[in-house]
Formats: sequence, structure tokens, C-alpha cells
Amino acid sequence: MLRTHTCGELTEDNIGQTVILCGWVAARRDHGKLIFIDIRDRYGFTQVVITPKPYPAAYETAKQLKCEDVVRITGEVNVRPAKTENPKIPTGLVELFTHNLEILNSSKDLPFQIEDTIEVSEEIKLLHRYLDLRRSTMLEKFIIRDKLNYKFREFLNRERFLEVETPFLTKSTPEGARDFLVPSRINPGMFYALPQSPQLFKQILMVSGFDRYYQIARCFRDEDLRRDRQPEFTQLDIEASFVSEEDLFKLVEEMFRFVFKEALGIDLTIPFTRISYQEAMATHQSDKPDIGQGQYRFLWVCDFPLFEYNEEEGRWNSAHHPFTAPKEEDIALLGKDMKNIRSRAYDLVLNGVEIASGSIRIHSRDLQQKIFSSIGLTAEEAQQKFAHLLRAFEYGAPPHGGLAVGLDRLYSIITGCESIREVIAFPKTQKGICPLTEAPSGVGQRQLDELNLSIKEKPEK
Amino acid sequence: MLRTHTCGELTEDNIGQTVILCGWVAARRDHGKLIFIDIRDRYGFTQVVITPKPYPAAYETAKQLKCEDVVRITGEVNVRPAKTENPKIPTGLVELFTHNLEILNSSKDLPFQIEDTIEVSEEIKLLHRYLDLRRSTMLEKFIIRDKLNYKFREFLNRERFLEVETPFLTKSTPEGARDFLVPSRINPGMFYALPQSPQLFKQILMVSGFDRYYQIARCFRDEDLRRDRQPEFTQLDIEASFVSEEDLFKLVEEMFRFVFKEALGIDLTIPFTRISYQEAMATHQSDKPDIGQGQYRFLWVCDFPLFEYNEEEGRWNSAHHPFTAPKEEDIALLGKDMKNIRSRAYDLVLNGVEIASGSIRIHSRDLQQKIFSSIGLTAEEAQQKFAHLLRAFEYGAPPHGGLAVGLDRLYSIITGCESIREVIAFPKTQKGICPLTEAPSGVGQRQLDELNLSIKEKPEK
Repeated sequence: MLRTHTCGELTEDNIGQTVILCGWVAARRDHGKLIFIDIRDRYGFTQVVITPKPYPAAYETAKQLKCEDVVRITGEVNVRPAKTENPKIPTGLVELFTHNLEILNSSKDLPFQIEDTIEVSEEIKLLHRYLDLRRSTMLEKFIIRDKLNYKFREFLNRERFLEVETPFLTKSTPEGARDFLVPSRINPGMFYALPQSPQLFKQILMVSGFDRYYQIARCFRDEDLRRDRQPEFTQLDIEASFVSEEDLFKLVEEMFRFVFKEALGIDLTIPFTRISYQEAMATHQSDKPDIGQGQYRFLWVCDFPLFEYNEEEGRWNSAHHPFTAPKEEDIALLGKDMKNIRSRAYDLVLNGVEIASGSIRIHSRDLQQKIFSSIGLTAEEAQQKFAHLLRAFEYGAPPHGGLAVGLDRLYSIITGCESIREVIAFPKTQKGICPLTEAPSGVGQRQLDELNLSIKEKPEK
Repeated sequence: MLRTHTCGELTEDNIGQTVILCGWVAARRDHGKLIFIDIRDRYGFTQVVITPKPYPAAYETAKQLKCEDVVRITGEVNVRPAKTENPKIPTGLVELFTHNLEILNSSKDLPFQIEDTIEVSEEIKLLHRYLDLRRSTMLEKFIIRDKLNYKFREFLNRERFLEVETPFLTKSTPEGARDFLVPSRINPGMFYALPQSPQLFKQILMVSGFDRYYQIARCFRDEDLRRDRQPEFTQLDIEASFVSEEDLFKLVEEMFRFVFKEALGIDLTIPFTRISYQEAMATHQSDKPDIGQGQYRFLWVCDFPLFEYNEEEGRWNSAHHPFTAPKEEDIALLGKDMKNIRSRAYDLVLNGVEIASGSIRIHSRDLQQKIFSSIGLTAEEAQQKFAHLLRAFEYGAPPHGGLAVGLDRLYSIITGCESIREVIAFPKTQKGICPLTEAPSGVGQRQLDELNLSIKEKPEK
């Protein structure tokens, strides 16, 4: 290591030791024959003192230092003079008396200062995301994100869930939102699609007998972007076999209790409040009501309608997806009273925001066929759309269910952000652009030729 | 839960208890008035006994059972009669005497049996991957993969590495292998590229002061596929600031020792053997020699040449990538003796296979500019190709380095597989096709129109 300690580490225990620190110049105060600099790294700040004697070279170098220069400092840990201590930071009782100062890299003048609160457009912040991420308020969000991701995995690992990586180059499906497409060079005229979620793969893993699956998975939807939407987003995806709603609710409640306690030191009360969709709409006029009191207000909303009427096409559609199981006692209403058939789908709402959604799935082919008929799909059409899942279901599919947690939304609530862009390291703007890398960009004719594609003339807007 | 126990759980301690198991019929032996079935789930096998009395309904159901039907069985745990015990399995001393037998789902006739060794083409296995994955030899690979992934994370988390998720929709770069492209609908004529690795993002995270980063990341390369290649593959990506080669070697050695011990119960000897590229070529005529003895033979190969001569273009190229640092003592040879300039790049070789690769990066703009000149890139060209990284480097880049471990290769060595396809849940064939989902596939005209693309006439082959 180029350093012996980090900038957040030195305390009174180190007094008298010769140490080496590396970090960024966060501030420089020149008092003539005495220069102070604060150096910063991920772990904290340390105050450094430089005087002309007995180390004049270090002093000469210190005179030219600018904010965000990267330095390496060898020196002795001293106690700070009385009344100059800073009790707010862990290193606040000591300072480093410099013997040697090396500029590892210098910085150009900054487009904005590295301060907790800055008044700069989002475009500029994203263009210089490496500077934006140096701010402790931003760094903290990614430390929390890492910690929660890790604790989710720790809990699920302990509960014997297997993490399985599912493909990103997969098949375009006609349902749901618009797919991002990836042209195949080896198979001209054919396209992969980026997954909107690992839904079908996790169900196939249940058919494979994997029993309990999870994945922190990237998902893709080519939708017009709004404040809380990104073309790529992350979900904690969970599926289990031989379970009922009660098992999943209990698992998810215990998971959140564990993660909040371990990562945030917060005690959640479980079980979470539970209301039906019907009750939520009647009482709160919302399917994701904010139930007040307490910092984190978790709420299960269940019994969502299985179908919703599509005015345009004059028929019933699946409200969730067509593999969602209906409630046992409502199956008799199929084809008779579609509006009142309740599903085994549920949402988890946190502070009025939907953060997870899932269902118990249909595993019986007969029932699945009835559902398809109810939404006007013939057996042939169903085959065409969902061939691989239906084929898998013919060879012994277990009862199963699961859910997916939208991690970007969850983390933006926890860190108090207005937009999920603040908890994504390198997000896109509302125009789908990354100012940092300038993606998307034009590509060469050779690349298009290899893909057997051509770009049409620019459409009129 | 639909069950009280798993199929791998019952022992003599459960004798006399009434339990419920769920699982797949793995075998059925009909002895007339006595039917045995073995039921299987992820956790093991349990022998089940069904007789006509006193539960005739269960017996009638059992008569129709076929392999891979999904069943739910309520019964009493009995000790197996003397001499019928199976000491090879944990449940081998007991059997379940059936009171109630429910078929949760039946299976069609199977395209192949669920056995450890099967003689079926890979195409058929991949078409019915959900059946292939039910084989215990396959399941075991994914249990090992999950365990090692988890242990890698545990080690790196403990060492204060932050897991940061980097984008999948990013910018096409002209270097390296061919990119997979993703047309942008919102920005007609523009394309994202899927990342060949998070290389540039992890370096930017170092400039952001994140200090220690890791990610288990999917990477994409549109290359012609060979046995050990997949269009998407997984790497354990690591980067750290203020480090030298020695720090990274020590970290990676301790990481592998921890993971092998914890996940596999194997003691690795560290430090690993280390040789220079020059010595490897002179002694073994290979830059990834297999150094014999011991089940797992790890070897560092270092001091790779910084440049390689491009005969076609009559100039020197970067052998690794142009951000790789040269060895300090060889910098003087720049422009004079290009062939003999050694880099600070290293590979980790396991049993003769390269499983990791990395380097200490250049952090000085002056040196970076000299390297660009050496490979014939003007400042303008360098800007055009690597604008965002070079811009980031102007604002205080710390010295940093890292490496990436090819997890698919590593896991195929550990599980003794010939191809990385066996350790990927849903792989592609050598034609880039997924037989299970039939990806890639044709897409509708409306989708192409929205992307402002047209497919050219089929090219002649």
C-alpha cells in the first residue's frame, strides 16, 4: 500500500507514530509560516500541518497545492493544540506534522466545489459524476446501497435461497412494456431482447427444482422516462416452491426486519399491516396508501383484481400477468363475473410507494388454459407467446410464488432522495442520455453492415 | 408451506411423527400390494411406502404415478425394516408410510431420464434445460456457484470493498472485441453498447474516491463463439486505489484461500508461485503454464510486454489496454526499444487456464500522453476515443489497479466441466441461440419502425 493508514483512522492511540496517508486535498489554509491542509479519502478527513522547518521541500510543495490534488504525506502524528480540537470527526484530536509531501496527481480547476450542498444543474453533475460522487452525501448513499444489498444476500443465503444468474440476451416477449432489442450479428435479421425482469427464468428454475431462488438483477424497459424511471433498474428477485402467501409474507417481513436492523440499526415491527385492495380503495382511494405514523410504514396490499377491462379492445386483460393465480374461491366466477375475481397478487407499499410486487403463480395446466381463454387467447396463441414456459409446465411444475423488490426506489426512500437517479452510480437523464460517457452514440457503417441493419431517414417530429 | 420437511431431512429423530413432504417422483417400484416411491427435491430423496390398507385412496393414486409427477404426501415416519436401509443417503434409515397422497401436477413422458449420466445431444438438453437442471450433477454445479459467489462477496465485504452496480446501456468503444449494440428509440440513429467489462467505470469510481470496488458483473462480447466462449459471461471485477502489485497479489491470494476453504473445504498454499512472462515463455513456451502437482495449481504470470507489434498496420499496439502502466525502470525505453518494455500487467493462471487478468493503471496524464504517442494516437484521437476517462483523469486521479476473475471458467474448472456452458444456467449454443427460449428471434415491423431501423436483404454467405 502507498499508505499506512486511511484518512479516517488516526486517533490519540497513534500519537508519536510516523505514518503515511494518501488522499485528496479537501481544504488548504495558508497562515504564512504555517499551512494547514485537510486531506480526505473515503474513510474520513485528517488535518495536516506543514511548516518551512525542518522540512522546507514539503513546505514549498504545500504552497502550490490546490483543492482535489492527490497527495501522499509522510509525517508524525501529534496531538492538536488545546482548543483546536474538532470533536465532530474521529480524527479530530490529532494532526499530522508533515515530513514529506508528494503530489501524486494534480487537479484542474473544478467545475463545482466538493461540498455537501451544491447549486449545479443535474447535467453538469452527471457530466462530472466522478466529482459529484466525491461528496460525502453521495458517497454515503452508495455505502448504504452496498450494505443493504449485502444484508439482503446474507439473509437469503441463510434461508437457503440460491443465487442464480439469468440471461441478459433473451427473447422478445409481446406482453408488458417495450423491450430493448439487441441485433444478432451471427443470426442476421434476428434480435435478442434485454429482460424486463427474470420472471420467466425464475419460474423455469422452480420447474427445475431449485426450490428457492434469488438474484439482484438488472431489468430493462424501453419506456418514455419520467422522474422515477430509468431504462435500466435493479430488482431483488425472489421465488420459492411449495409456498403460500403466508410463507412469502413472513419471509419478506423477516428479511426487511433483519436488513433494517443490521444495515441501518432500525427496529421494524412485524408482521406488517395487511389490507385488501378493495379495502385500500374504499378507505384510502389508493392501492398504495401511506398509513402514517412511524418512520418506515410498510403495508401489504393483497387480493388485487385478477383482470382489468381493456376499453379499447373490448376485452378483459390480466391485471398482473397471465400466470398469476386466482383466489381458489373465485375460480367459479371465471367467464361470469370477471370484475370480481380476486388474484393471489400482492404489493408491498413503503411510505405510500410500491416497493415490491408479486404473486402465487398458476401451476395447473387446466387452470392456465381457462385463464388464457378468459382473456381471449386460444391455445395456439398462448403457445406462440409463452411457448417455453408452457412447455416447461408440462413436465411437473411445482406450486410456486415470489416477488420482486424495486431496489432503486427502496434505496431512494431510505436515503431521502427525490429521484432514483441519486442512488444509481451512473444514471441516464430523462432523454436516456449518459452525459458522462455520451451514450448513446452514433456507430460506424461497418458495425451496421455487420448487423445487416440500416438507419432510416430521420423521422419527422 | 405446503410441506413440513424437505425430502433430505427426515432421520431416526423423526420416527413416529406425522409429516408432509412435497417433491418429484424419482422412482416407483410396484410390488403389487406394496408400492415404493422415491420422492426428490433439491435437498435429497425420501423413500415412501404405500399400501392398500388402511388408506386405499392413496394406494389408488399411487398406482397411476409416473416419474416427475409432483406430489404432496402426508404420512408417518417409520424405521426401515432391517437390511433395507440405505446408508448412502441421510434419510436412508427411515421411510414414510403414506396416509394421504396428492398429485400437485403430473408430468408428460420425459424426453430423457433424470439421471446423473445421460446420452442426449446438448441441443435437447438445452431445449429442456428445466429437466437437465433437475439432475443432481447439474444442480450441484449451481449450488457450488452460489456458494463461491457468496464467499467472494463475504471476503471482499469484510475487506471494505464496496459493491457498485455499473451500467449495461453504455457507450460503444472502438477498442477490443466487437460490441453488442442496442438501438435507442428516444435518440433515433444512436446506439448504446453492452459493456465488454466495467473497466472504464471502475476506474472512474477510483477517481470518485470509492477506494475499493467490486462487482460480480455480466460482460458481453460479440465474438464468433468457440467452446469456451459465450456472448455473455460473468466476471468478478475488482479495483483498488493507492495499491501496488504486491497489495493486489496478497489480497487475491487471501481471497482465494478464504473462498476455497469456506466453500470447498480445500486448503490452498499461499503465496502462489510467481513467474515473469519472459521466464514462462523461456521455460514453458506458454504464458499460462500448468505447473503440475497439487489439485489446484495457481500461478501468477507478471511483467507482460506493454506493447505488441501489429504487422498489418506496421505499428505498436497496447498488449493489454492503453491504461496499463509500464514498469518504472522501463519507461526510458519508450520510443526506443518498444519490444522490451515490460508492463505492470499480470495474469492469474489455474491449472494452465488464465482465470484472472489485471494491471496497475497509469494515473499520470503526462505518462498517459506518452503511451498514446507511442501507439500512434494523437491527443485529439485519444480524446475522441476515451474522452470521459481522460476528462476524469484531469481532476485528481489516484494511483490504482485491479483485476477481473473469469468466474465461468473458474467454476468450470472447480466442477470439472469441459465447457463453461455447464455452469451457466441458461447458456447459448455456438450459434448464439438459446434453444429453450428460441432467442434470438424475429421482431415485428412496428418495433423496427420505432427504432428507426430496417433490415437489409439477407447477405450472401
